[in-house]
Amino acid sequence: MATAGKVIKCKAAVAWEPNKPLVIEEIEVAPPQANDVRIKIVATAVCHTDLYYLLESMQKDGFPTVLGHEAAGIVESVGPGVTEIQPGDKVIPLFMPQCRECRFCKSPKSNQCAWGPTMQTNMKPPAYRLTCKDKNLQQCLGVGAFSEYTVVNQIAVAKIDPAAPLDKVCLLGCGVCTGYGAAVNTAKVEPGSTCAVFGLGAIGLAAVMGCKAAGAEKIIAVDINPDKFEKAKVFGATDFVNPKDHNKPISQVLSEMTDGGVDFSVECVGNVELMRSALESCVQGWGVSVIVGLTHLNDISAPPMQLIAGRTWKGSAFGGFKGRDAVPQMVKAYLDKKLKLDEFITHNMTLDQVNDAIELMKHGKCIRTVLNVSPQ
Amino acid sequence: MATAGKVIKCKAAVAWEPNKPLVIEEIEVAPPQANDVRIKIVATAVCHTDLYYLLESMQKDGFPTVLGHEAAGIVESVGPGVTEIQPGDKVIPLFMPQCRECRFCKSPKSNQCAWGPTMQTNMKPPAYRLTCKDKNLQQCLGVGAFSEYTVVNQIAVAKIDPAAPLDKVCLLGCGVCTGYGAAVNTAKVEPGSTCAVFGLGAIGLAAVMGCKAAGAEKIIAVDINPDKFEKAKVFGATDFVNPKDHNKPISQVLSEMTDGGVDFSVECVGNVELMRSALESCVQGWGVSVIVGLTHLNDISAPPMQLIAGRTWKGSAFGGFKGRDAVPQMVKAYLDKKLKLDEFITHNMTLDQVNDAIELMKHGKCIRTVLNVSPQ
Repeated sequence: MATAGKVIKCKAAVAWEPNKPLVIEEIEVAPPQANDVRIKIVATAVCHTDLYYLLESMQKDGFPTVLGHEAAGIVESVGPGVTEIQPGDKVIPLFMPQCRECRFCKSPKSNQCAWGPTMQTNMKPPAYRLTCKDKNLQQCLGVGAFSEYTVVNQIAVAKIDPAAPLDKVCLLGCGVCTGYGAAVNTAKVEPGSTCAVFGLGAIGLAAVMGCKAAGAEKIIAVDINPDKFEKAKVFGATDFVNPKDHNKPISQVLSEMTDGGVDFSVECVGNVELMRSALESCVQGWGVSVIVGLTHLNDISAPPMQLIAGRTWKGSAFGGFKGRDAVPQMVKAYLDKKLKLDEFITHNMTLDQVNDAIELMKHGKCIRTVLNVSPQ
Repeated sequence: MATAGKVIKCKAAVAWEPNKPLVIEEIEVAPPQANDVRIKIVATAVCHTDLYYLLESMQKDGFPTVLGHEAAGIVESVGPGVTEIQPGDKVIPLFMPQCRECRFCKSPKSNQCAWGPTMQTNMKPPAYRLTCKDKNLQQCLGVGAFSEYTVVNQIAVAKIDPAAPLDKVCLLGCGVCTGYGAAVNTAKVEPGSTCAVFGLGAIGLAAVMGCKAAGAEKIIAVDINPDKFEKAKVFGATDFVNPKDHNKPISQVLSEMTDGGVDFSVECVGNVELMRSALESCVQGWGVSVIVGLTHLNDISAPPMQLIAGRTWKGSAFGGFKGRDAVPQMVKAYLDKKLKLDEFITHNMTLDQVNDAIELMKHGKCIRTVLNVSPQ
């Protein structure tokens, strides 16, 4: 392409500091270096984790940054050493890479590539590729997709079916895989089982969909906003509990509904009290509770006897999916109508409206807002 | 037998109140009612859980009680409805019963029989069978084996090989099965793996033995008492760490020794700080940490990211063994010299010396003291 090898000037939403509106700026995007892929972002959804970094954790050394990590786009150019990706390919950038060579990638037990600690501690990419007004910009979670162009390493790029509509499959870059996989891969929900999903945002709804796909018989959707229950039903929820309707602990409510507790529970909020409730809602003997919601602000806690009585406490990142292998398969499942995506999308906006999209999510008024960043 | 159907007067060590020496008393042991089995206790070992109830949790409504739950004996008589057990049988009483009919017994995933909540909340048997000076005595953990005779339900009795030496196999009534099974059944230690065992009492040493039996390549034994290391070597430990020798967190020490953390860790102390260390000592991606040590006094806690990064937190009671099925097999493994028991026994005493045995354990000066209660 005409832009290959050159700096691209383009539009991006820059988070200059915590807890302030993003600012639409013209930024410079460096040409891809060795193993890097420069992507024209076509669509980006707003995920709660973007809000977490902007409004909750607010670590000052994480700014200025370009948020946005649930995206899809088209490869503009590639750097030296990039072998499996070509300009023009449709791709989904991955916040958890898959190098295929480290011991984690080689193990069937884990999707936590040794090259991907960005999610856990380090929001800084190995080198700055985005700049604005002579300042280096970080790429939140290694992606930085609230921008018309971004650059990521080839191990963090999933090449997908050219037939895929990018303004839909962008959801597979984070939320839908995260929730669906937490049920299917991490909890390993079993046919005929009883499940509870705490929190009915996109991740929770995807977890409901995962429970259903795995054959769960009873799927209890838990949220303090009853407006979400109708949507949860679409994805397969069979029962609904609003903790505000009860004056006893939610774990007791669920235990009474299920003769002693659910077989599997998934926490999709990021609230440590709810993580404890989700654990305590599980049946003794074999109940498995999976933490999906992200927070670094508090510790989880529980009586040791909760575990000694036979419960298992796990966590899930990106649903346990190895991104380069699994995301193309999830795209295919959507194209084959075996996976719902359209039903998550409540709003479509443009990149200029990103602050409006953030406000919608902050107030629980959307499931997913897709920002149409560039024309396909 | 001549005593069948009659009250037996015999000697027992009664705990009248928390944190006081036990008193050797003459007690009355009722004849076995429906489904009950009266057992002449031949040998009882002192387990740390006895000390826990006497000296740590000190719940007043748990007294007066007869402690002791790691025992072996000979059936004296049986009540109506007892089918598989006869007078003269050698048996090990079980603090976790196995009814074989509840959904937990029927599931291969759990050993937590629905009839066995004694361990968790209720130290009171369904009816009092032991009395002293016109006062009802509880049977701690449903057993009450610091007594020449006790009575338990048939679902809490494992019938064992008549060739078994009761002063050795009594250890299979709790500690050895608990530690060994935590490694083999709960953690599911894998061949070639790296393990850490925290706390080298009998349960920890049994966990070391379990890790070895499961084929672990590196077994790191952790204790603040280096005198225990020689013994741990006997059971298969390959490396030793004394936290007092290091001025950094033990999880960091283990992580550095193992290129990122162990595959499996087992906490055998009952200290919630150590439970957190054991979790944090596990490698991200697939590390499994199992809590075995019992405490109701504090909560466990950890950053959610510890689990989201791929670690699993579990607990184990009686090593995940279904007692009536597994204890006879473990006895056989001992008779076949596939399992060590003698090496745990550091002291032999009589029931009269029970307070001396408790003092030894309180000060970490024994592994197991076996009390010879009645002649075989």
